[in-house]
Amino acid sequence: MTASKKIAIYPGSFDPFTNGHIDLVERATRIFDLVIVTIAVNSKKETLFTGSEREDLIREAIDTKPWSDKVQVEQFTGLLVDFAEEKNATVLLRGVRQISDFEYEFQMALTNRRLSPNLDTLFLMPDENHAITSSSIVKEIALWDGDISSFVPHNIHKAILKKMN
Amino acid sequence: MTASKKIAIYPGSFDPFTNGHIDLVERATRIFDLVIVTIAVNSKKETLFTGSEREDLIREAIDTKPWSDKVQVEQFTGLLVDFAEEKNATVLLRGVRQISDFEYEFQMALTNRRLSPNLDTLFLMPDENHAITSSSIVKEIALWDGDISSFVPHNIHKAILKKMN
Amino acid sequence: MTASKKIAIYPGSFDPFTNGHIDLVERATRIFDLVIVTIAVNSKKETLFTGSEREDLIREAIDTKPWSDKVQVEQFTGLLVDFAEEKNATVLLRGVRQISDFEYEFQMALTNRRLSPNLDTLFLMPDENHAITSSSIVKEIALWDGDISSFVPHNIHKAILKKMN
Amino acid sequence: MTASKKIAIYPGSFDPFTNGHIDLVERATRIFDLVIVTIAVNSKKETLFTGSEREDLIREAIDTKPWSDKVQVEQFTGLLVDFAEEKNATVLLRGVRQISDFEYEFQMALTNRRLSPNLDTLFLMPDENHAITSSSIVKEIALWDGDISSFVPHNIHKAILKKMN
Amino acid sequence: MTASKKIAIYPGSFDPFTNGHIDLVERATRIFDLVIVTIAVNSKKETLFTGSEREDLIREAIDTKPWSDKVQVEQFTGLLVDFAEEKNATVLLRGVRQISDFEYEFQMALTNRRLSPNLDTLFLMPDENHAITSSSIVKEIALWDGDISSFVPHNIHKAILKKMN
Amino acid sequence: MTASKKIAIYPGSFDPFTNGHIDLVERATRIFDLVIVTIAVNSKKETLFTGSEREDLIREAIDTKPWSDKVQVEQFTGLLVDFAEEKNATVLLRGVRQISDFEYEFQMALTNRRLSPNLDTLFLMPDENHAITSSSIVKEIALWDGDISSFVPHNIHKAILKKMN
Repeated sequence: MTASKKIAIYPGSFDPFTNGHIDLVERATRIFDLVIVTIAVNSKKETLFTGSEREDLIREAIDTKPWSDKVQVEQFTGLLVDFAEEKNATVLLRGVRQISDFEYEFQMALTNRRLSPNLDTLFLMPDENHAITSSSIVKEIALWDGDISSFVPHNIHKAILKKMN
Repeated sequence: MTASKKIAIYPGSFDPFTNGHIDLVERATRIFDLVIVTIAVNSKKETLFTGSEREDLIREAIDTKPWSDKVQVEQFTGLLVDFAEEKNATVLLRGVRQISDFEYEFQMALTNRRLSPNLDTLFLMPDENHAITSSSIVKEIALWDGDISSFVPHNIHKAILKKMN
Repeated sequence: MTASKKIAIYPGSFDPFTNGHIDLVERATRIFDLVIVTIAVNSKKETLFTGSEREDLIREAIDTKPWSDKVQVEQFTGLLVDFAEEKNATVLLRGVRQISDFEYEFQMALTNRRLSPNLDTLFLMPDENHAITSSSIVKEIALWDGDISSFVPHNIHKAILKKMN
Repeated sequence: MTASKKIAIYPGSFDPFTNGHIDLVERATRIFDLVIVTIAVNSKKETLFTGSEREDLIREAIDTKPWSDKVQVEQFTGLLVDFAEEKNATVLLRGVRQISDFEYEFQMALTNRRLSPNLDTLFLMPDENHAITSSSIVKEIALWDGDISSFVPHNIHKAILKKMN
Repeated sequence: MTASKKIAIYPGSFDPFTNGHIDLVERATRIFDLVIVTIAVNSKKETLFTGSEREDLIREAIDTKPWSDKVQVEQFTGLLVDFAEEKNATVLLRGVRQISDFEYEFQMALTNRRLSPNLDTLFLMPDENHAITSSSIVKEIALWDGDISSFVPHNIHKAILKKMN
Repeated sequence: MTASKKIAIYPGSFDPFTNGHIDLVERATRIFDLVIVTIAVNSKKETLFTGSEREDLIREAIDTKPWSDKVQVEQFTGLLVDFAEEKNATVLLRGVRQISDFEYEFQMALTNRRLSPNLDTLFLMPDENHAITSSSIVKEIALWDGDISSFVPHNIHKAILKKMN
């Protein structure tokens, strides 16, 4: 008898995907057999990149990594617990960079656990060099021509510059 | 070629081990191949139970659980990162019940990562029914003959009553 | 000479009223002679239910409770301190479920005290089973056909389903 | 039939009782029929004043206040929930000055509720002028001959000076 | 050889400028040779006053102060680090009134430091009497004809009343 | 007429002085004319190094720095506000690495301001690489032969090793 594959979903807006996100996915691939980067697509929320653009950019950003075969990238709408069930994921992965992140995450984790008792939320910290890299700060800096090259992968850097000009 | 076993250490004082700790170990066994309950023994700190008593009580408390074969119980002194390396553990597991827990945990996790870059700290939440169960509150209630039966396993309940009379 | 009636106002958006809100109102009726559920109606904020709908739903939800004769339900616009004075209320009641709630509440309480020195703000905790039940999470779950039956009273559950289809 | 008297206990170390504590007791007397200042006496903890000294000092400090007939002062050891039951108190009152206070209070309140489901914890804020007045800071300042006259009642100021010389 | 002038920028929306802001500027003038009140003008954000109105109101509010010759008032759009460089400022000044302020400030400060390593962020506390005075609360109270005279300078009080009628 | 010298005191236990502390002192020398590293000596608290040892170690650690002529090192007992007055310091400098630091600091800053209204507390952040370096963690790691070379200056590293063997 073989042990079942350990599958984790890693949900987020990823608008854009940053080096902090990449760092977290890499860590997760050391623990899980499959990590599904799950792009939350919300038609009511204005984003810099469409869901499909984000999907392409993330795939391109991780494609050359040695651990890329343990990662899938997918868009989703709806309830996260339903998506997890459909994918046979038993773990929901969240990055926590600071305290205020955590309180919101805590509440969502308890809610998701009530909706789906077998789905556990795990919190991981990105490398401390990425602790300040939030997607919204990256966009704000790029908007005013600040240097974002240390915050995002190269292909995403290019895509942001193109989008903003 | 076989995948390497995923080993997590779960360190704590466990003085005493509570239902919240049991809940966390059970969750961890769903994710890891082996979970090592790691009892920090500090000769300078006064405890209710000795290291060996705690080791016995925890073993007894989890012995009848269906997942007990995925759990080891060990005492340790020294640096956690050294213990993890010796055990081939790649994950350090911590329960977080509330925000203030988290900030201290955050700092320890960053320190441990710097001492041992391949050791990742993962945070898990116990069931919300156990969120308020801290070892020190359990001892405080027991000291004044309050009812602790819903906070700790049966064998530990008995051991606490015996110790306090 | 008779003691004056102790009147508390319990303000909120209540869009929708949840089981956590009901729990808090019940606790408050044990302490105060009259609890006024005070629906903040803000024409600029988009809500699921209108002020009048919320008023009807709350009344219906508490109508059969043994403590319902100690509760009034009212809509209001304007400054809370003016409403409290008009109603002869000396206490403003707030539920606190977690730390981040508290900081905002703290600031509002200090502001209200400065505007009306005799109006004290009291903080109460809902039952821990309701600690994660926020109105916005309930709406988010309902939007995607998740099960909200354990979060809201029966009549409000029905009203939400009707509103969303 | 008469309504039952509303009784609140207000526990603390009160070593010493400060102007912030007095402010809170006064606010509580506007809401409750009886407020019992409950001095936690812990033989293991070193204190500036003995339990009996604290009891006398607090009585003296509030004796001339117009609301003093609604206040009792008592020492206690043991479990707060047992003391509350013995006194027919249904409310446990706690002052919260800042966030970090609150998290500990939150955990204690949930624990007490589980031990005694009908005992509700209410949080009140002292006047913002007293928000920084903690008993331990008062003692620290007095130790180095700093001016504590704005932090404590006159009789307690005198008692501290006498004790420290 | 003369020491270089110490220049600090103090950025904010200042919509409106409050007594808490004035208090902070005054404290800053005791430490720095020049304090530049830097009005962030964001065309996408709806404000009560235009950038130019805010500039005029702030100048008028501080004009009669004994320390006004150490203060400049300017509007800006773009990246704060670029503005600081242009002005030869080496310090970015931020007021912190409470914990939640701080976490956001912390992240911005680390981001700005990475973009401009020689620009240090300094945190100062306003007088505790102004700790609750946020611009948004002032506007909310004014909207409902509440008394804001203790929260803002006289000229700004008048301007708000005029704007809202 | 010449401007008065800007003097800041930077108090702490500094048991031991870490690279994070050095980083903060360097930043402070860019802003102030004189920074007094103020070693709190408390005879009741057990320390690794005596007050005089800490004084010598700190002097040695900063002696070769280009900014060392703007720094003094002194021991003190008593009230910080008295020490500040004696030294003509108008600023009290504190490092903040994380939220929980800040709340305690906030309370001390408000207390010190009340005792000495013209003494302002300024908060500075150490470099993020030093954000996790607390003196107590350094000692804990050293106790178990962990590598502390990246956390403290070279001379202090040697002194700790010598002290612990």
